Amino acid sequence: MQQEKPIHPRYRLIVSCPDRTGIVAEVTQLVADKLGSLVESHHHTDVEEGWFFMRIVVQSNQDSVSAAEFRELFEPLAKSFGMQWYLRDSAEKQKLVSMASHASHCLADLLYRWKSGELICDIPCVISNHENLRGMVEWHGIPFHYVPVPKGDKAEAFRAVNEIVTRHNADTVVLARYMQIIPPDLCAKYAGRLINIHHSFLPSFVGANPYQRAYDRGVKLVGATSHYVTEELDEGPIIEQDVIRVNHSSSREDMIRLGRDVEKSVLARGVRSHLEDRVIVYGNKTVVFGA
Amino acid sequence: MQQEKPIHPRYRLIVSCPDRTGIVAEVTQLVADKLGSLVESHHHTDVEEGWFFMRIVVQSNQDSVSAAEFRELFEPLAKSFGMQWYLRDSAEKQKLVSMASHASHCLADLLYRWKSGELICDIPCVISNHENLRGMVEWHGIPFHYVPVPKGDKAEAFRAVNEIVTRHNADTVVLARYMQIIPPDLCAKYAGRLINIHHSFLPSFVGANPYQRAYDRGVKLVGATSHYVTEELDEGPIIEQDVIRVNHSSSREDMIRLGRDVEKSVLARGVRSHLEDRVIVYGNKTVVFGA
Amino acid sequence: MQQEKPIHPRYRLIVSCPDRTGIVAEVTQLVADKLGSLVESHHHTDVEEGWFFMRIVVQSNQDSVSAAEFRELFEPLAKSFGMQWYLRDSAEKQKLVSMASHASHCLADLLYRWKSGELICDIPCVISNHENLRGMVEWHGIPFHYVPVPKGDKAEAFRAVNEIVTRHNADTVVLARYMQIIPPDLCAKYAGRLINIHHSFLPSFVGANPYQRAYDRGVKLVGATSHYVTEELDEGPIIEQDVIRVNHSSSREDMIRLGRDVEKSVLARGVRSHLEDRVIVYGNKTVVFGA
Amino acid sequence: MQQEKPIHPRYRLIVSCPDRTGIVAEVTQLVADKLGSLVESHHHTDVEEGWFFMRIVVQSNQDSVSAAEFRELFEPLAKSFGMQWYLRDSAEKQKLVSMASHASHCLADLLYRWKSGELICDIPCVISNHENLRGMVEWHGIPFHYVPVPKGDKAEAFRAVNEIVTRHNADTVVLARYMQIIPPDLCAKYAGRLINIHHSFLPSFVGANPYQRAYDRGVKLVGATSHYVTEELDEGPIIEQDVIRVNHSSSREDMIRLGRDVEKSVLARGVRSHLEDRVIVYGNKTVVFGA
Repeated sequence: MQQEKPIHPRYRLIVSCPDRTGIVAEVTQLVADKLGSLVESHHHTDVEEGWFFMRIVVQSNQDSVSAAEFRELFEPLAKSFGMQWYLRDSAEKQKLVSMASHASHCLADLLYRWKSGELICDIPCVISNHENLRGMVEWHGIPFHYVPVPKGDKAEAFRAVNEIVTRHNADTVVLARYMQIIPPDLCAKYAGRLINIHHSFLPSFVGANPYQRAYDRGVKLVGATSHYVTEELDEGPIIEQDVIRVNHSSSREDMIRLGRDVEKSVLARGVRSHLEDRVIVYGNKTVVFGA
Repeated sequence: MQQEKPIHPRYRLIVSCPDRTGIVAEVTQLVADKLGSLVESHHHTDVEEGWFFMRIVVQSNQDSVSAAEFRELFEPLAKSFGMQWYLRDSAEKQKLVSMASHASHCLADLLYRWKSGELICDIPCVISNHENLRGMVEWHGIPFHYVPVPKGDKAEAFRAVNEIVTRHNADTVVLARYMQIIPPDLCAKYAGRLINIHHSFLPSFVGANPYQRAYDRGVKLVGATSHYVTEELDEGPIIEQDVIRVNHSSSREDMIRLGRDVEKSVLARGVRSHLEDRVIVYGNKTVVFGA
Repeated sequence: MQQEKPIHPRYRLIVSCPDRTGIVAEVTQLVADKLGSLVESHHHTDVEEGWFFMRIVVQSNQDSVSAAEFRELFEPLAKSFGMQWYLRDSAEKQKLVSMASHASHCLADLLYRWKSGELICDIPCVISNHENLRGMVEWHGIPFHYVPVPKGDKAEAFRAVNEIVTRHNADTVVLARYMQIIPPDLCAKYAGRLINIHHSFLPSFVGANPYQRAYDRGVKLVGATSHYVTEELDEGPIIEQDVIRVNHSSSREDMIRLGRDVEKSVLARGVRSHLEDRVIVYGNKTVVFGA
Repeated sequence: MQQEKPIHPRYRLIVSCPDRTGIVAEVTQLVADKLGSLVESHHHTDVEEGWFFMRIVVQSNQDSVSAAEFRELFEPLAKSFGMQWYLRDSAEKQKLVSMASHASHCLADLLYRWKSGELICDIPCVISNHENLRGMVEWHGIPFHYVPVPKGDKAEAFRAVNEIVTRHNADTVVLARYMQIIPPDLCAKYAGRLINIHHSFLPSFVGANPYQRAYDRGVKLVGATSHYVTEELDEGPIIEQDVIRVNHSSSREDMIRLGRDVEKSVLARGVRSHLEDRVIVYGNKTVVFGA
């Protein structure tokens, strides 16, 4: 059922820049000449902002230059268009550190998808402010770091968190229902690489206790949102959202239970898109290619 | 494909009261003895509030008492349980007055469903603060009242609206994208009978320009909400909600277009539930049976 | 967040019988007199078949008779209406044996929901015709039985399966992507208690390789179906179904991956409804109350 | 809210051909040099079939060549890659003839979307084998042709249909619940331009009475499918599908009613994609860009 691993590398090239005639032509010409053939390709133009976005996947062959050589060849072109860009070998695995609290559903789901090969990344460790998930994490062969966050000394706790994340060279940090607010310096350090799952359909019910508030408001759908964390609580760029139907007979506990399934899938889809370099943040929005 | 009209009337009995042991037994016993057999039946207990809700549909027969007689027989039982209740012949058509502004999609959809027999009601007239929908309304054989709402004299306009609605003995008023705020006295007069469609997934984007704000926030789903109108704008009891997927390539115009279909179906489902006596308002919430 | 466990038992009473005036009245009267108060209640009348279905949940109190006494008191009434019925203490846990093959997603999901208290049952063992899931199952503290099904001697294998299932007094057997056809005698023995997940939206793609066939047909949605197993392959009563959107860019592998999430949730919802006595089979259909 | 009409034309270029390195580069280079700038762009590679598909939207400017000139310039390139292709001015309106029978919902929905500017096309006439929709069609200012299809002489009827469709130079024919089987010669003549709505989630319930059969099978979702008509009944390339939830309490009439809304939106989305040149048929499948 699995495709054979190609002998020659496959690359993802991600580009964003001011829109101008000829970008696609010049980029794809250089790619065709030096790197290989397109196997996937997505473009988007935000006409209002005058901005262009592109993600292509290139299959290299025996005549292709190396990634390093291509980056050098591409740089002048990128400069002339004012591009932000990167090229990644799709076999390269990001290092993903996950953080959780007491609730297990999102973390268990992430670890399952990782173990079964659905999420392609390395998970060097999990950090939690509770001990209860240690057994599950360690059964997966992943180190578990317990970092309590006492009310009086949160700063010290987040210094420890930062130290662990830094030591493991994390590319991406995923908050799998981590119930502490991340301090601004960490938000800034991991801008565009720190993903949270919020248990409501944002911008409804920003902040604490969204299911209780959904119940009190009498809504007929509850939802979840995966987004990049910024300094402003629950206001960062949205990656993915979904909802599920509830009704008058749904208790708060039913909403929480039904919501768990939405949280899991919305977080997993968001993380997968991020790991596959499908997400480009611009302003407070995202382009999510092929989602 | 259509069921034959029964010769004997079919009734809906709607009850809500403090929860207590024996309500269903006593009500269904009286119904079985005097009115006929159950063909539909829904109960709900709000355990937290200690409140009970019931909607049953009863098929009468040649031995049944009349509706008037049943009401008299039922009254002592209702009193003993502290019930709010009503009995309606399901062949009885409510009088529904619809109000619209410039946008046609919700009104056109309501009129189509009415004409094709999907919404069972009479529509004595349509009121609008614009002239452009007159042709469509009159083609359906429905009188069209143009009541402009000038900035300086809204009170006078709503006196005229009230007069028309009252003259037609409206049971229910449906705001099919009517873009004026209803004054508090009309909200109070038609409490629980005045239905609005809001073009967002409430409580997201209360107030004006929800699609623009959804676009600016970068949400991945847009929605609509049908709800009863109260004095507080977009805060009334929710009847029905739904959403549709959008993405980074969806312009505001795309969101508006996709949203129109959600608005139409969410309003139609809300109105249908209301006309079939499936909705019970309590506090700021609704029970919607069998939706 | 959890409700306190009631000191007095809570019962589920499930009834189906020919429709007649007065059933609800008589049943709820006896319940109110002897057993307690209704906390949940669902009825359905299949008008065409003239058949009535009911599921009520009753909270008993210090004055209630015991379950055994109530069953005795109920029997004459049940007989007079020709009822099929049972009363179950909702604290009673069914014994659920799950069977799987090589794919882990459905089984992992079931075990997670069981461990986290979302599926209330005992799981005395898991049976598989492969060894690869042993580690995961045993980590949950559940015995794992490896019963290979060799091409030449399937009958012997299913004798072993039957022996294991019988020894554990299984109330319910769940096929969590078990890829062998169950022989007719086992289908008959566990009629209405043997649940399968089929990886298509039945009746589309009955039989083998549904994702391949969905891909070949160019469908725009793929789905899954949980159903009771009968002798006729994939033709048993459907409990739950759902679908997910695919498009021209979805490879077979994408369909399989996206379908896994649908399979998991459709199976979990079906099993949960079954364990909560919400499903009544009649003919080749199901009534699923409150799903 | 509406975008201003551009003074210079906007073009759609649709291409499919055997996959090869350099296609995008060469096409977009010629476009950038001669025609204008990309405002929309979709590619797809069917890796298995080795086939490439592209749809781009190009905004021309004062320096652009004309459409005719561009076609001439493009032809050699197209030949060298073995392309099937066309270029269309997006202001050009297709001529769409719709055919219906007795049921009004799909036709009413199409006409509403056409009248409100959501479907950009001309509708020179509607053909029906019943008279009942004449009033609605003519109110929209569209000629209505009544062509009965008597059991004994269907061939004559379809000669008349063909004559009308041909006389109006129809680009596209839409069967909006037209309940007669189209003869093979018409299927062939309008291959890839004759769209039908089937009232089931194909390949479930091919042929007659899908709702009855869905009801009998006890499915938990009903659906609809828009597809191109081929000689084999309900087996043509699928454009769009969707489903809606039903349950044990849904009668056949409920399924038909709920299904109508799905039919309408699935047909409208299919027709819209077709009119915007987003659909490419290959084999018995479709690529639907940006749906």
